[in-house]
Formats: sequence, structure tokens, C-alpha cells
Amino acid sequence: MKKNYTIVIDTLGSDKGPEAIIEGTKLVLNEFNNVNITLVGDEELIKSKGLPTDRVKIIHAPETVTNYDSPIEAFYKKANVSVFKAVEECSKDENAIGIISSGNTGALLVGTLRYLLDEKRTRPALAAILPNMAKGFTCLVDTGASIDCGPAQLVEFAHLGTDFMRKLYKIENPRVGLLSNGSEPTKGNHLVKETHPLLAKEEGINFIGNVEGSKALSGICDVLVSEGFAGNQVLKNTEGTAIALITEIMKFGKKTGQEEVAQQIAGYLMKTYDFESLGAGIMLGARKLVLKCRGSSGPAAIRSAAKILINVIEDKTFYE
Amino acid sequence: MKKNYTIVIDTLGSDKGPEAIIEGTKLVLNEFNNVNITLVGDEELIKSKGLPTDRVKIIHAPETVTNYDSPIEAFYKKANVSVFKAVEECSKDENAIGIISSGNTGALLVGTLRYLLDEKRTRPALAAILPNMAKGFTCLVDTGASIDCGPAQLVEFAHLGTDFMRKLYKIENPRVGLLSNGSEPTKGNHLVKETHPLLAKEEGINFIGNVEGSKALSGICDVLVSEGFAGNQVLKNTEGTAIALITEIMKFGKKTGQEEVAQQIAGYLMKTYDFESLGAGIMLGARKLVLKCRGSSGPAAIRSAAKILINVIEDKTFYE
Repeated sequence: MKKNYTIVIDTLGSDKGPEAIIEGTKLVLNEFNNVNITLVGDEELIKSKGLPTDRVKIIHAPETVTNYDSPIEAFYKKANVSVFKAVEECSKDENAIGIISSGNTGALLVGTLRYLLDEKRTRPALAAILPNMAKGFTCLVDTGASIDCGPAQLVEFAHLGTDFMRKLYKIENPRVGLLSNGSEPTKGNHLVKETHPLLAKEEGINFIGNVEGSKALSGICDVLVSEGFAGNQVLKNTEGTAIALITEIMKFGKKTGQEEVAQQIAGYLMKTYDFESLGAGIMLGARKLVLKCRGSSGPAAIRSAAKILINVIEDKTFYE
Repeated sequence: MKKNYTIVIDTLGSDKGPEAIIEGTKLVLNEFNNVNITLVGDEELIKSKGLPTDRVKIIHAPETVTNYDSPIEAFYKKANVSVFKAVEECSKDENAIGIISSGNTGALLVGTLRYLLDEKRTRPALAAILPNMAKGFTCLVDTGASIDCGPAQLVEFAHLGTDFMRKLYKIENPRVGLLSNGSEPTKGNHLVKETHPLLAKEEGINFIGNVEGSKALSGICDVLVSEGFAGNQVLKNTEGTAIALITEIMKFGKKTGQEEVAQQIAGYLMKTYDFESLGAGIMLGARKLVLKCRGSSGPAAIRSAAKILINVIEDKTFYE
């Protein structure tokens, strides 16, 4: 018999509204019959959508943390914030394998730090799993949860990424690169220059040196370590450039009367550089799985995120 | 009669060796008959290549600044560094319109600061001109010359980029964006948060707010301001992602027996996202044109860079 899982889903925070998230929940329930869902948000609204009561639990927490709030202040001042309640529930419920949220990243970080931090860690980090040219995946960490952090944090990111790639992708000795503006050890900002020697001597880290932004998708490393601001640029620029090129391909197809093959190629690229999944970040350093979907997430993104959680828990790779 | 120009070319610093740069010089001399060249580097080697002596002047300066040297130390300690001599020559020679170097960025910055700084400016910045989806160009500044700089520098970058896009692309009131990890004014690292209100109130700057890395090629702004480390990630990641996608297109063509059209599409993208030119950065804030070619520059890159200098001086757009 298949094992039953519970996934906690924060219904608030997506630009598309809670309806889109609840729609995504339906997709998950239909596709995975061994999954139960705990939905957190506006109870009345959720109830009105007619989900199967035997597989869906509802927690009423209608408040949100916006991009204009301080997440830490919100944690202490607001009583019923959906993302905090969702992480708390995930921590308490033994059957819960993880949480999915498309709300404020900082709030999810604070919630994870408070309720789900791995005891060996000081702080979680938000990673993205980028498809690379070597037919593998590179774990980019951090992608925006830890902005302006220091060298010690970067060393911790190296461990978090190494653990993740070892466990999930069965890479025995993951190669760790440090994002910089040049591959030479002398290149970098103050932070990179301070971090480089620390990583070089760190036990348990297979450090290959500095890696430039142009090599993020090359497969030169399995883990790419960065402070959150620069890592965010790499993640989002990858997406933006892919969109620009795919748009050009479609234009070219139209202009030259080769729309069909242009569409095939664009579809192939979109599958390889799956934007919905690229948008899902995973919080490393937590005791359970914490997935951050982008703010623009719709039903398909929620289904995708649930699939990732199930893959990870069933010891498959991220996008299997 | 066509006006005669002199272009100063630093022959040292390219990974491909001075021979490749001298080969590029030949291309320039053949294509542009109103251009004279001053070559700086190893005199004996340059002489051995049989260039026309009536159009080529040689300056002997065989020393280099490597990626392992401190550029400022090298400036004061080494007597005959080609890039410094080249910038000095460009500053002194009335006919010289600009300099092309593919060596160390920091050394070119120091040379420019010392010999060619515009009197209104405190520091040059290295910009890249990115093709955008709105069929225009976005000036990304800084792309790696000013790492770990402060808010005042970023405001200056905004002016440098604005002046450049106004002069070169005839955009009356260039839209200036500030690279951040979110579009809301509350998003950013410390530097961005400090810079945002300064740009908002700065006279002569048409500030549109924070711009995410995913929008660098969108055409949402004409000037994208960033500290050099993060700007370098955007520039190099754009290139890396384009290479990854073009490689995938070729693979797809092979796999599906549609190699010819895949090749057409790849060629079209490579023309639009011209890597040789993307690799050429322009130093803003200098009295003359200072072009930085990438370290891997070969003959075509030198020819491309010379064409850019001529375009700019003849009041055409960058890539015309």
C-alpha cells in the first residue's frame, strides 16, 4: 500500500489570489490519491470551494505579510498570519512532509527559522535547482532569502547545498563553486575574497574555486554558493534571458514562415528550462521540506511544487 | 573627404596572445581606410608582422598587469605597462578617438582614471550595451569595474548612463532602473535601499524604480544601474544562458532531423545577442572612448570594437 502524506499549503500571498491556489490543490488531490492537504488561509472562502472534507483540513489564518511589511515585526505583532500558521502546522503534524507557499520570501524564512530549523544549522537558505548543460542540475544557494550575509553564512550555504545534492542527486562529492566576477581566486567583492580561503580549507566541502555568472548553467559545479542578492540576479536573469530568446525564436518562426518548428523548439526549451519549476525555491536547512513558489503562481505551479515534494520524499530527483 | 581617425590598441592582455590582436588590427586597416592605428606592446613582435608603416605607429611597452596583480600597485611600480601607455597615448594624441584593450579591467580603469577622466566625474564606470526585447538597447552600468561601491557612485552611474543613452541613442529622457531583488522600493540589499531615495530625488534622472534581474533584457528601462559585482552577474549570466539555449537548439535540431532550421535560428539569435559585442564594455566617464574587450578576444572582437568606436564618433548607434 502506498504511504499517505500530508502537504501543508499556504493559500495566501499569490498575486493570482487564493482561488488559484485552491484550484491547484484540486489538481494535487486528483493526481496523487495518497496525499492529504492542509490548507491555511480564509476558512470561509476555502470551504466555499467544495473540496473533499476527508482529505482536506482547513486552518483559519486570514492575515498576510506583504512586501511592505517587516517579516520579523509581522511575526511578533500579527496573530493570524497564514504563512506562519502553515509552517507551525507543518512542524507539529507528524504526517506533514512539507509546506508550499507563494507569499513573501522573508516571512517564509522567518517562519522556517522559528519552527522548522534543522538543529545543526543557524539559518535556512533559499536554493534554486537549475538545469545545466551537462544534463544535470546545479543547486544555486542563496537566491534571495539571505541578503547582505557574511562569509560564515556562505560556508554554511556550501554545506547545505552539498548535503542536498548528495542526498537528492546521489552525488557523492558535490563540486562547490563560489559565484564571483572572475574565476581567479583574487577576483571578487570583499565578501567573496573573505569567503574563498574559508571554503578552500573547509572540511567536507569539495571546493573548486570561483565561478563566473556565465558558468551558472554550464555544469562546472553541483553547488553554486552566493550571497542572496547576487544569487537572485543569476536566478532571475536566467529566466529573463530564456524568455527573451524564446520570444525571438517565435518571432523568427513567424517572419520566415517556419512557425511550427519554431514552436517545437520553444516548447522543448521551455520544458528543459521549466520556468514554473525554476520559480520554486527550496528552503535548505529545514527539518521538513519548505517550497517557495513565485508570487505569480497559479494552479500548475502548486501542482508542480507538490510533485517536487513527493519526488524528494520518495527519494527521486527534484524534477523526476 | 572622410575624416581620419587614430585608434590606440593595447596588444597585450588577450588570452589569445598579441598575434590575435595584431591580426585584428589588419582587419581594421583593411576595412576602414580612414583609420590609423597606434599599437602598444612588444615592438619587435609587432614589427615582425609587416603592418603598413604609414598607418601604424608602435609604442614599446612590453609589461602587463595580470589578474594576480593589484592594478594600482602596478601603475606606480611597473614602468612599461602596455595598457597604461596606451591610455596615456590616447590622452595625448589629438587625433586619437579612443583605445581598445582586452587586458585586465582594473588596470584599464586605473589608466582611464589617471589619464582620461572627464573633469565632471570622480570615477569611470564600465557599461555594457544589452539588446532588449523592445528592439532597443539597455545600458547596464557598472559591469565589474566598481566592485563594492557606495550609493553616491550609483547615482553617478545613473548620470553616466543617462548622458550616454541620450547622446548615442537620442533618447531624450532615458528611463533609469536600479537593479534589485524585487521591484518594490522596500526590496534590495543595504546599498540598493540607500540608493533608491537618492535616485528618486536626483535632478536630471528619470528614475523608474527597482528593476529585477529577470527584466534586464525586457526594455523596461534604458539605463540599468548596479554595483559592479551584481552587474557582472547579469552581464555574464545573460551570455551563459544564451549559450546554453543555443546549444540546446542545435541538439534539438540534430535529434529531430531539423538541423538546417535549428542552425538558422541559432544564427539569428547569435546575431541579435551578439556575444563578441556583448563582450565589449565601454568605460563611461572618460574624455575619449575606452573599450574593454573580453580576455578571450580574437581578431573579430578587435574589428568589432573598432567599428563601435567609429560608430560612436560618427554619431551612429553602438551596433549600427
